[in-house]
Amino acid sequence: MTRFDFDFWNGYMLDSLSDGSHDREHVRRVLYNALEIAKGEAGADMDVLVCACLLHDIGRPEQFADPALCHARVGAEKAERFLAEHGYSPEFARRVADAIRTHRYRRGEPPESVEARILFDADKLDACGAMGIARTFLYKGGVGDPIYTLGENGMPSDGSDGAKVSFFQEYKFKLEKLYDRFYTVRGRELALERRQAAEDFYRALLAESRRPYLAGREELEKLLKEE
Amino acid sequence: MTRFDFDFWNGYMLDSLSDGSHDREHVRRVLYNALEIAKGEAGADMDVLVCACLLHDIGRPEQFADPALCHARVGAEKAERFLAEHGYSPEFARRVADAIRTHRYRRGEPPESVEARILFDADKLDACGAMGIARTFLYKGGVGDPIYTLGENGMPSDGSDGAKVSFFQEYKFKLEKLYDRFYTVRGRELALERRQAAEDFYRALLAESRRPYLAGREELEKLLKEE
Repeated sequence: MTRFDFDFWNGYMLDSLSDGSHDREHVRRVLYNALEIAKGEAGADMDVLVCACLLHDIGRPEQFADPALCHARVGAEKAERFLAEHGYSPEFARRVADAIRTHRYRRGEPPESVEARILFDADKLDACGAMGIARTFLYKGGVGDPIYTLGENGMPSDGSDGAKVSFFQEYKFKLEKLYDRFYTVRGRELALERRQAAEDFYRALLAESRRPYLAGREELEKLLKEE
Repeated sequence: MTRFDFDFWNGYMLDSLSDGSHDREHVRRVLYNALEIAKGEAGADMDVLVCACLLHDIGRPEQFADPALCHARVGAEKAERFLAEHGYSPEFARRVADAIRTHRYRRGEPPESVEARILFDADKLDACGAMGIARTFLYKGGVGDPIYTLGENGMPSDGSDGAKVSFFQEYKFKLEKLYDRFYTVRGRELALERRQAAEDFYRALLAESRRPYLAGREELEKLLKEE
């Protein structure tokens, strides 16, 4: 077995998929993003990077089954064990695990190695722009969350009150803020190219969500009074 | 019991919800859209229209459980039975059922009454623009369909080959074509206001889907050859 055993790592990844927003094409895009970003970063170990990209979401099924678990932490442990059991050096297994452990946006632990920073940015890039919108909806559809909730005024909330889970809440509390969180120059450039598409969609969807209420609530009130 | 028994119909609707793309807010938007569209259509019976809007998707759970069933047909039968059992005239029940039976885009049977045409347009409007994109993704996430499938060249397909189920396929075969299918003047106007947002999003998402493959596949080939 060579150290750079793409098909072997890939096979383990395919056995560990969870939902449609974290499917094999997400993993592929993250890997391809990482290879492009790596060209602008000095000193990245490509074996560590490719392996970490392929295995970065293998802790997802555990988190999906129990939301109290962190898929980055579980995935790091699974990857380190998997690599150690299959003859990789403890040093290699640890470096892959470190990158996986720190790839999650919501965690406080920042990525430290160059491979960890590239994985973080490559994964975050797939949550930017239209792709981030699409994947967030796939995820929300899987867990049954709504597009919006109604505010006290009976109108669709823009998500900034943060009171209830919805697509708009996820947009305001995560998707909108991603663009300031990149560690690499190329990652940030690629993210900013996508920003406008996400902002335009959010604005259009919010306007379309509110439009029927603006026109229709009053009409309904009139009908109810007539009876 | 008055004939215009909003809360009573609304309660039956709330007992018959299925998935996140056809939730109570969808029904509310369709009702509000219909009330706006009706202002431009002569001779609509508002009792029939409001009742048909509220009950138009009550056949969804049956179709969700068995995709061979048509929710418009099942919903029409359920509504007619429900109304007959609760003292509404056979004429009223039949007119509501007719509107529900013909509201589905995929069916060949066109809406005939003015109330049926308004319901059709009010429902289709909620599949246009950014809202149509969002609701399609929620639905796809619920049933586990992907954003795209790969064509023979290994690149994300734009959906026009239609070979496999995906968001892009649904966009090319349904969402993109909706705008030519409106029956009312106001419905068509409201739909066209939303068209650009949907087209922009589709184009951005397709470009973002393909971008990583364009850059990364070659890089990966190089790495695999080096080993």
